[in-house]
Amino acid sequence: MPDIIAETLHELIVATRILANERILDAFGHVSVRHPHNPKRYFIPRHMAPELAEVSDVVELTLDSEPVRPTQFRLYSEKVIHGEIYKARPDVNAVCHHHAHTVLPFAISGQQIVPVFHLGAAIGHVPFWDQRDEFGDTNMLVVKPEEGASLARALGPNWMVLMRRHGATVAGTGIRELIFRCVFGSDNCKLLAQAMAMGMGMGMGHVDSLSPGEAKLTSAHQQRPPSTNRAWDYWVRQVEKAGLMPKAPIGAATPAGKRAKAKAAKKTPVRATTKKRR
Amino acid sequence: MPDIIAETLHELIVATRILANERILDAFGHVSVRHPHNPKRYFIPRHMAPELAEVSDVVELTLDSEPVRPTQFRLYSEKVIHGEIYKARPDVNAVCHHHAHTVLPFAISGQQIVPVFHLGAAIGHVPFWDQRDEFGDTNMLVVKPEEGASLARALGPNWMVLMRRHGATVAGTGIRELIFRCVFGSDNCKLLAQAMAMGMGMGMGHVDSLSPGEAKLTSAHQQRPPSTNRAWDYWVRQVEKAGLMPKAPIGAATPAGKRAKAKAAKKTPVRATTKKRR
Amino acid sequence: MPDIIAETLHELIVATRILANERILDAFGHVSVRHPHNPKRYFIPRHMAPELAEVSDVVELTLDSEPVRPTQFRLYSEKVIHGEIYKARPDVNAVCHHHAHTVLPFAISGQQIVPVFHLGAAIGHVPFWDQRDEFGDTNMLVVKPEEGASLARALGPNWMVLMRRHGATVAGTGIRELIFRCVFGSDNCKLLAQAMAMGMGMGMGHVDSLSPGEAKLTSAHQQRPPSTNRAWDYWVRQVEKAGLMPKAPIGAATPAGKRAKAKAAKKTPVRATTKKRR
Amino acid sequence: MPDIIAETLHELIVATRILANERILDAFGHVSVRHPHNPKRYFIPRHMAPELAEVSDVVELTLDSEPVRPTQFRLYSEKVIHGEIYKARPDVNAVCHHHAHTVLPFAISGQQIVPVFHLGAAIGHVPFWDQRDEFGDTNMLVVKPEEGASLARALGPNWMVLMRRHGATVAGTGIRELIFRCVFGSDNCKLLAQAMAMGMGMGMGHVDSLSPGEAKLTSAHQQRPPSTNRAWDYWVRQVEKAGLMPKAPIGAATPAGKRAKAKAAKKTPVRATTKKRR
Repeated sequence: MPDIIAETLHELIVATRILANERILDAFGHVSVRHPHNPKRYFIPRHMAPELAEVSDVVELTLDSEPVRPTQFRLYSEKVIHGEIYKARPDVNAVCHHHAHTVLPFAISGQQIVPVFHLGAAIGHVPFWDQRDEFGDTNMLVVKPEEGASLARALGPNWMVLMRRHGATVAGTGIRELIFRCVFGSDNCKLLAQAMAMGMGMGMGHVDSLSPGEAKLTSAHQQRPPSTNRAWDYWVRQVEKAGLMPKAPIGAATPAGKRAKAKAAKKTPVRATTKKRR
Repeated sequence: MPDIIAETLHELIVATRILANERILDAFGHVSVRHPHNPKRYFIPRHMAPELAEVSDVVELTLDSEPVRPTQFRLYSEKVIHGEIYKARPDVNAVCHHHAHTVLPFAISGQQIVPVFHLGAAIGHVPFWDQRDEFGDTNMLVVKPEEGASLARALGPNWMVLMRRHGATVAGTGIRELIFRCVFGSDNCKLLAQAMAMGMGMGMGHVDSLSPGEAKLTSAHQQRPPSTNRAWDYWVRQVEKAGLMPKAPIGAATPAGKRAKAKAAKKTPVRATTKKRR
Repeated sequence: MPDIIAETLHELIVATRILANERILDAFGHVSVRHPHNPKRYFIPRHMAPELAEVSDVVELTLDSEPVRPTQFRLYSEKVIHGEIYKARPDVNAVCHHHAHTVLPFAISGQQIVPVFHLGAAIGHVPFWDQRDEFGDTNMLVVKPEEGASLARALGPNWMVLMRRHGATVAGTGIRELIFRCVFGSDNCKLLAQAMAMGMGMGMGHVDSLSPGEAKLTSAHQQRPPSTNRAWDYWVRQVEKAGLMPKAPIGAATPAGKRAKAKAAKKTPVRATTKKRR
Repeated sequence: MPDIIAETLHELIVATRILANERILDAFGHVSVRHPHNPKRYFIPRHMAPELAEVSDVVELTLDSEPVRPTQFRLYSEKVIHGEIYKARPDVNAVCHHHAHTVLPFAISGQQIVPVFHLGAAIGHVPFWDQRDEFGDTNMLVVKPEEGASLARALGPNWMVLMRRHGATVAGTGIRELIFRCVFGSDNCKLLAQAMAMGMGMGMGHVDSLSPGEAKLTSAHQQRPPSTNRAWDYWVRQVEKAGLMPKAPIGAATPAGKRAKAKAAKKTPVRATTKKRR
């Protein structure tokens, strides 16, 4: 019988390694996941560069972002980003805060992000939030609960919010969907910036974005497991190639083990090599 | 006596590894090859990130993109891209569908791609195709046979077609020519975008592209084996350095084996280290 | 009892490896540190590509940039950059001179660098210096003491100065703060350039930079050990992954050793895995 | 007694590996060196991707680019680029033809390259050459002796010539100077392009290039051995890290061996670890 908590924590760490390897996270940024059984709790690693976190670094917090058990670990200053979004959005089960270099120019210039290729539809509508509007001059970190609540209000029913002069926060109904949205959202921003530059000087100042109908149909397709799992397996392989794979929890089926098993069986459908997630 | 099918499938997987290593393919995209003996069949890996595919993942499809033998494998949603092009173009024996980041900004901005350096002549004329024109709002995947046929019509007698807000599809008379066209086509797009940006602000808004005579003469030269094989050997070496080389089929001469043999002989001409292809 | 000099030299070499790995330094550029006990001395490697320097390559110089003990080593031509800044700035204990490709376009175009995201606040105000102004045509190296003194005057009370058509020089109160400023200063320049390009053609020609209040509050927060140490640990891990870690001095606690010790203890707070620095 | 020919050939292969690792060469491009004893001969590898060439692949050609001894090797189509420059320029002893992506946008847009940072002074004045001017529509390869002679005339007394819609050819008085010019010339182009983009939209359309006096003084300094050797040692280390180092000729002192020897001696000046070249 699989240990759901252990597998969740392992998947959280793998997800974080993926985002570090894909250059969405660097020394800063963090990923969290809601407790699979108790919606009033969430898991997040302690204060450290996200790539370096192991399952043993993960702490369990309340939605007020307080530790459930006493701990000597220092916690992320911006943990309320996660807790306040989990409070405001019962449908969200995974959150990432990052400073990806593909996205930050939009947070700096105020240019609107729109989906410009089919895989970018995952981002949906992307609102802005500027800490200065409500709180004036601050140290620009989302530290106080009211600052996290303000950010969650700006996110609204959407899946990604741009934080002016800071970065972005992304949400998902599960870890794999979150990672899919982070990576292809980053790609979308990179491609949008290049298409904008291209359109500028040659007499056509417009960029062709997805129609609302296209955006809706294609993101629905992408959020189904064959699509998210195919991408997840690819990113996990990149993490393995980079020597960044964490040890699997004891007893849980790992992607590597499942691949070997599937290879031997030869006729096994794709879905046996990936774990079904929400 | 060499097993042509086994060598073809091995070359298909090596070609896919090359395009993944050269960042033309990522979690998405796919490469196929027409059956060397039966023009009504083609080979393509099952639904998975292309870099991860081994020869054992390859399926044989009819030109209607249906499996020749029953299979439990999930197939690529967009397999009809390949089948419909093989139907429309008897001269095409290899097809690649990709979302390369060098090319996609042109598919987003609608900017015309032209060859701007001699190795870029491989792309020829590059038409556009927009799924929305004929099919309105869709999930933006080329899934239905009529959608694949529409794309094949847009490709026409050309070798590359840009798919608006999606990516590109590239064809070749053989695998090595296809890979040459994909990689140097990608380079051409990257260089064209940079030259366009350069021309914009400094008073010269024009980019110098190849004349029709130049394009014809230079692409004819490049499609000869010494040129395509030299590039192929280089890209294979990069795949080996990245630890991405698949196992060679039993009994077939591999590039690595041939190089070792040639090294010992020392006076062997270049052509002995590469396999002659169409 | 720790050997402070040995640990300082080790940290200097690690810092140099970090900047080489992060592409701030290449064949050229250099990092120095003031003597921890004697403010009239500083340490810098001998003339060589910075990435290649080991502790055994480090020499001790006076603030006139003369060797304290006779040496057969060739010294950096531009050592006076360091010595003259240490003379002018008693608060500075670490200096880096680099030609980072993210920063150089600003030194070439004369475009002002401003902090555009919270981590870029570390750079503060960035003045320009042009060797041609005071010295006419030179070989563009800061070789004479008066040239170094001129540069130090241009730096003034700031932490980074742009050297026209040459590169940049960055200062810090300690090594870890210096590296933080170099890396996030480089990121800031890269993001600023991209945001500027984005703002140009789409009707909004402005880039949103940090307010003075924001810049002051956020840089004060970042210069505290939890923040600089978190980033330092991350960059050290990247150096280890690249196989670039120098051997630790005998008897000194190394980051790797401390991490292993902390891992075993499991409950140890973050601060035990990093060394407190000025 | 060192074998000068063996050391020259080894250095030619190391130089080629450096340029491949620094992304100046890819599947195409080539490097040659004039015979150290006989100015009517030069050495160049046979037709193959340059990174793959070993000393055993090198052939000796006359300045008419004909093999000195009968060979079964296929030779580079564009060998006359090298031979004709060696004829026209007795001061040139090393030549590189490349399609570096940093440089090609200038060859495509016709934008003039100027040195914009001190290390870029190595390129000097960079004229253009367009094969179409004298030869009309061709396959764009410099194959005929008269085409090579035309290119050499365009190069004139300079050190780098841009070939429209094709690439660049670079010359040097020796291999190490050639490589220094290729790498920092490539950097210069990359930085110039970025500075140009930066200057465009913000109201200052000018890029600050080196004055003639600066260019002359700084390039003279850079061409002295401490500078070229320091960079060479750095690039060789990158080649070693990439696993691309060729085997050293038997009996010749290799950089790795010399470094080990110098390390043990500890007091050895820098110059003992590098070989003096022209």
